[in-house]
Amino acid sequence: MSESERESDLVSEESEEEIEYKAGAPPAPIIDMQEFRHWTLYRALISEFVATLLFLYITVASVIGYKVQSSADPCDGVGVINGLAWASGGMIFVLVYCNTTISGGHINPAVTFGMMLTRKITVPRCVLYMAAQCLGAIVGTAIVKGTMDQHAYDSNGGGANVVASGYSRGAALAAEIIGTFILVFIVFYSIDPKMRAMDSTIPLLAPLPMGFAVFAVQLATIPITGAGINPARSLGAAVIYNHSNAWDDHWIFWVGPLVGAAAAAVYYHFNPKDAIDDAMDKFEPNPTN
Amino acid sequence: MSESERESDLVSEESEEEIEYKAGAPPAPIIDMQEFRHWTLYRALISEFVATLLFLYITVASVIGYKVQSSADPCDGVGVINGLAWASGGMIFVLVYCNTTISGGHINPAVTFGMMLTRKITVPRCVLYMAAQCLGAIVGTAIVKGTMDQHAYDSNGGGANVVASGYSRGAALAAEIIGTFILVFIVFYSIDPKMRAMDSTIPLLAPLPMGFAVFAVQLATIPITGAGINPARSLGAAVIYNHSNAWDDHWIFWVGPLVGAAAAAVYYHFNPKDAIDDAMDKFEPNPTN
Amino acid sequence: MSESERESDLVSEESEEEIEYKAGAPPAPIIDMQEFRHWTLYRALISEFVATLLFLYITVASVIGYKVQSSADPCDGVGVINGLAWASGGMIFVLVYCNTTISGGHINPAVTFGMMLTRKITVPRCVLYMAAQCLGAIVGTAIVKGTMDQHAYDSNGGGANVVASGYSRGAALAAEIIGTFILVFIVFYSIDPKMRAMDSTIPLLAPLPMGFAVFAVQLATIPITGAGINPARSLGAAVIYNHSNAWDDHWIFWVGPLVGAAAAAVYYHFNPKDAIDDAMDKFEPNPTN
Amino acid sequence: MSESERESDLVSEESEEEIEYKAGAPPAPIIDMQEFRHWTLYRALISEFVATLLFLYITVASVIGYKVQSSADPCDGVGVINGLAWASGGMIFVLVYCNTTISGGHINPAVTFGMMLTRKITVPRCVLYMAAQCLGAIVGTAIVKGTMDQHAYDSNGGGANVVASGYSRGAALAAEIIGTFILVFIVFYSIDPKMRAMDSTIPLLAPLPMGFAVFAVQLATIPITGAGINPARSLGAAVIYNHSNAWDDHWIFWVGPLVGAAAAAVYYHFNPKDAIDDAMDKFEPNPTN
Repeated sequence: MSESERESDLVSEESEEEIEYKAGAPPAPIIDMQEFRHWTLYRALISEFVATLLFLYITVASVIGYKVQSSADPCDGVGVINGLAWASGGMIFVLVYCNTTISGGHINPAVTFGMMLTRKITVPRCVLYMAAQCLGAIVGTAIVKGTMDQHAYDSNGGGANVVASGYSRGAALAAEIIGTFILVFIVFYSIDPKMRAMDSTIPLLAPLPMGFAVFAVQLATIPITGAGINPARSLGAAVIYNHSNAWDDHWIFWVGPLVGAAAAAVYYHFNPKDAIDDAMDKFEPNPTN
Repeated sequence: MSESERESDLVSEESEEEIEYKAGAPPAPIIDMQEFRHWTLYRALISEFVATLLFLYITVASVIGYKVQSSADPCDGVGVINGLAWASGGMIFVLVYCNTTISGGHINPAVTFGMMLTRKITVPRCVLYMAAQCLGAIVGTAIVKGTMDQHAYDSNGGGANVVASGYSRGAALAAEIIGTFILVFIVFYSIDPKMRAMDSTIPLLAPLPMGFAVFAVQLATIPITGAGINPARSLGAAVIYNHSNAWDDHWIFWVGPLVGAAAAAVYYHFNPKDAIDDAMDKFEPNPTN
Repeated sequence: MSESERESDLVSEESEEEIEYKAGAPPAPIIDMQEFRHWTLYRALISEFVATLLFLYITVASVIGYKVQSSADPCDGVGVINGLAWASGGMIFVLVYCNTTISGGHINPAVTFGMMLTRKITVPRCVLYMAAQCLGAIVGTAIVKGTMDQHAYDSNGGGANVVASGYSRGAALAAEIIGTFILVFIVFYSIDPKMRAMDSTIPLLAPLPMGFAVFAVQLATIPITGAGINPARSLGAAVIYNHSNAWDDHWIFWVGPLVGAAAAAVYYHFNPKDAIDDAMDKFEPNPTN
Repeated sequence: MSESERESDLVSEESEEEIEYKAGAPPAPIIDMQEFRHWTLYRALISEFVATLLFLYITVASVIGYKVQSSADPCDGVGVINGLAWASGGMIFVLVYCNTTISGGHINPAVTFGMMLTRKITVPRCVLYMAAQCLGAIVGTAIVKGTMDQHAYDSNGGGANVVASGYSRGAALAAEIIGTFILVFIVFYSIDPKMRAMDSTIPLLAPLPMGFAVFAVQLATIPITGAGINPARSLGAAVIYNHSNAWDDHWIFWVGPLVGAAAAAVYYHFNPKDAIDDAMDKFEPNPTN
C-alpha cells in the first residue's frame, strides 16, 4: 500500500478498496439474471453436487461398516458415535477446504439458507445449490447401498436420521436447531469481511474449526437423532433407505436446521457483528505491511 | 514501516508503537466507570453467556448420550472419557476461535480470574464475565435436562463433577489445580504482546492448542473428578442436577481452578515472561517486513 | 514487487513472473535426460523410500498390535478401524509435511500417477518414484514381521488388504476408486499455482487436510477392503504376508487407486480448475504485499 | 529489504544477514562458559523441568485412570492405546508450542541429544537439559502416585515402560529406535534455517506435526513397549514405580531413543539437508516480501 500513497493515480482505487473493506461486499440482489449466463454458477453447482455426494458416501459407509464390524466382534468397531462424528467432521474440514474458492463450500442446505438470508447469495442460487446438494446426497447414499451387502445396509437403518427411542420430537428438534446454530454461526463469523480484515487468522483456519464444530455437535447429537444438522444429508439417506420410520420424522431434519441457521443469522447480526463494528472503530489497518 | 523511516512526521507515531510493542498494553485499571457506558461490555457479556451455554449443552449432552447408548449396547458408545474429552476440547477450540475478538473468548471463570489478576481486565468486568458464564452454564444444562429422558439424565449423574470413588479430596483438588494451570498458562503465553510480536505463529494457532490442552487434561482428569477445570461448567451441572453428592465437593471445583489460574499467573510472570524479555533484548523486529 | 515497478531493468523479470503466475509452471517433458544427472532425483527417491517405509511400519504395526491387545482383553485395544485410520492419517500428515520440499511428498503410487498424467513430473521419474515407494513398503512391512511375534503376525493377516466377506469385488473396487479420488483431488487442488497465488492458506495447511482425507476415507473403507488407496501399501503388505488370499484380489488395489487418481485428474481439469480460472479473471493480485 | 537496497549504509548488514540465511547460525561451541552467566539458561532449565513434569503427570494419570475405569465397566474406558496416544501427542503439541521460545521445547532427552550431536546446543546445556527433564519426569509421576489410590497405581504397572510379552528385546529396541527416528527427524526438518527461509509454513505448523508424530508412533509402539521414545518419561515412571520388571529392560529406553536420534541426525544430514541445499540453489528469496 506504500505505493498507492506515493502515486496519486492510485488514490481513487485505494479509496474504493477502503470502502469495501469497511462495509464488506454489497448485498447480493434477490435475483440476478446475469448469474445464469456465467459458467461459474454451473461449476459451483457441480462442486456442491460432488462434495455432498462424497460427504454422504463416506459418512453412511462409515456408520454401516462400523455396525457390521461391531456385530461380528464387540469392541472391534470404531464406536459408532466416535466413528461417525470423526468421519463427518473430517470430511467437512476437507471438503470446505477444497471448495471454498469454487462454490463457497456450503455442502449443506442450512448453510446455503443462512447465506441467502444475509444476502450473500441470490435466491435462485440458493435454490439451485440446495437442489445440487440434495441430488448429490441421494447419489452418494445410492452408491453405498449399491456396493454394500443389502442385509447389512437394511438391518442398520441405512444411515437414516430418526428420533432415538427415549427422546421426544421436541428434544430432537431442539438438538437440530442448536447444532446447526453452532455450525452456521462459525460460518458467518469466518466470512465477515471486517473480521477477515482485522484478524489474519480467520480465513486461514476457517475450515478446521468448521470441521471440529461438526464433530463436537455430532458427539452430542448422534444419540438423539443420529445427527442431521444438514437437510441434504438427512434427505439423501431417507430417499435411498425409504422406510416409513425414516420419513415420519423427516420434517424435523428440515425445520430444525433451517431454524438454527436463521437463529444464527439473527444472533450474528445483532451481537458479534456489532461487537466487530465497535472494535473496527478503534482498529486502524496497518498502513505498511 | 519503510514509510515511517522516510517521512519524519510519522516518527513519533512509530516511537509510540515501539514503546507499546516493548511493554504491551498498559495494565487495566482496577475499576473503569467508562467501561459501563459502552455497548462493547454488554456484547462481550452476551457472547460469554452464549458460548458457555453452548459449551455446557454439547458436553453434558455428550456424556449422557454416551451412557444411554452404552448401556443398551456395550462398546457401542463413544467411550465416556474419550467422548467427553473430545467434545470439551473441540468446543473450546471452536468457541475461543469465534469469540476472541468479541469478549476475549474466556468461557471459563478461571481464565477470567487469571486475566484479572494480571490486570488485563478490570475487577467489575471480571465479576460480570463470571456471572454471565455461570448463567450460561446453568441455562445450557437446563436445555439438556429439559429435552432429555429424565431417567437417563438422573441415572447418569446429570454430567455433574464429583470426586470419583477411590480418590481423596486432596487428589481431586490437585488434579483440578494442575489441569487449570496448564490451560491458563497457555492463555497467558498466547496473549503476551512480546510473544506475539516476536513469533507470528502465536496468535495464529492459539485456539487450537487451547482446545488440545483441554482435551489432554480431560483424558487425565475425567477418571478423578469428571474434569471440571472450569467453575462455571461445574456450577451449571450442579445447579440443574441438584443432588447432595454434586454439592458436597463443589468447593473443590472453585478453589482448584482459581488456585491453578493464580499459580499459572505467578509462574508465567517469573519464568516464561522473563525468558521472553531476555529473548526480546536480542531480538530486533524486522524493519521491513 | 514495489521495487520492480520502480526499477526498469527488473520489468522483464516481473513480466516473466507474471506469466508463470497466470499459467503455472510449464508442463514437465515426457522424458528429461538431464534429470538423471542431478542428485536431486536420487535424494527424492531416497526420501520416498524412507517415507513409505515409515508409513508401512507404523500402520501395519498399529493394526497387528491392536489385534493382539484386543484378543487378550476385549475393549482394551484401540478399535481397529479407529486406530488404523488415525495411524494412517496422522502419518500422512507428518510425512507429507516433512517431504514436500524434497520429493513432493507423494508416498503413494496413485499420487505419483496423477502427477504424471497432469505432466507435473516426467514418465521416468514416475516409474522410479513408484519403485522406491514399493520397495520402501516391502522393507517397512518386513521390519514389522521381523520384530513381531510370528503367530500374532500371521493370525492377524499381516496387515494385508483383502476384500471383506459380505462385499463383492465390484464394491471393493468402487471403494478404492472413490477413496483415492478424494485424496488425489485434494493434492491437485493444493498444488494448483493459481490457487496458491489467490489464497495464501492453501500451501500453509495442505498436509493437514491430506492427512484428514486419508483418515476419513479409511474410516469408511477399512470395513470393506482394509483400506488400500495406496498400491505401494497394499503391495508391501501382500509381498511380506504372501498368502494366496492377499494375492487373489491384489489387482483391485492397483486398478482402483490408479483409476481414482485419473478420475480426479479429469474432474479437476474440467471443473475446479476452470472455476479457478474464472475467479482469476476477476482477481487482481495485491500489488504491494 | 527494499530499504537496504536503497540505503548503502545498510548493505553490510544485509550481506551478513544473507550469509546467515544461507548457512544458518554457526555451530554452537562444545562448551561456552559465558552461557552459565545468563539467566536464560536457568529459565530454560525451569521450563524443561515444568514441561516434562506436566507431560508425565497427564500421560501417567491417563493410562492409570483409564485402566481403573475400564476394570469397573468394560468398554467404558478410553481404550488404553488410543487414550495414551492422544494424551501424549496432545501434550507434546501443547508443550512444544508453549516452550519453543524459552528453551527450544525439547521435553525429551533424545531430542536434546540430537540437538547436541548437530551442534545446536553446547554439551553442558545438553547435560543440564537432560537432568531437568529427568527430574521433572520423576516429580510428575510422583504427583500421580501421591494423589492416586495406591492399589490402582500398583496393579496397573505405574505407567512404566516394559517389553510386552510376546515381543523380544530386539523388537522393543527396534520399535524405540524407529519411533524416535521419526520424531527427531521432524524436529531437525522444522528447525533447518534454510527450510524456514524457503517455506513459511515450516515454523508455523511445527508443533502440530510433532504432536501427531508422537501420537502415530505411540499407536504402533504402545502394544510393544508401552511407548517410551523419551528416556525421561521412561526413567520417571521407573523410579517412582520401582519394581524390578521396570528396571530389567530399562536400558532399552535409553539406548533405543538415543540411537534413533543419532540415526535421524545422520539421515537428515546426508539426504534431506542436501536436497534442501540443492533446492536453495534454484530458490531466490523474494526480495520485497
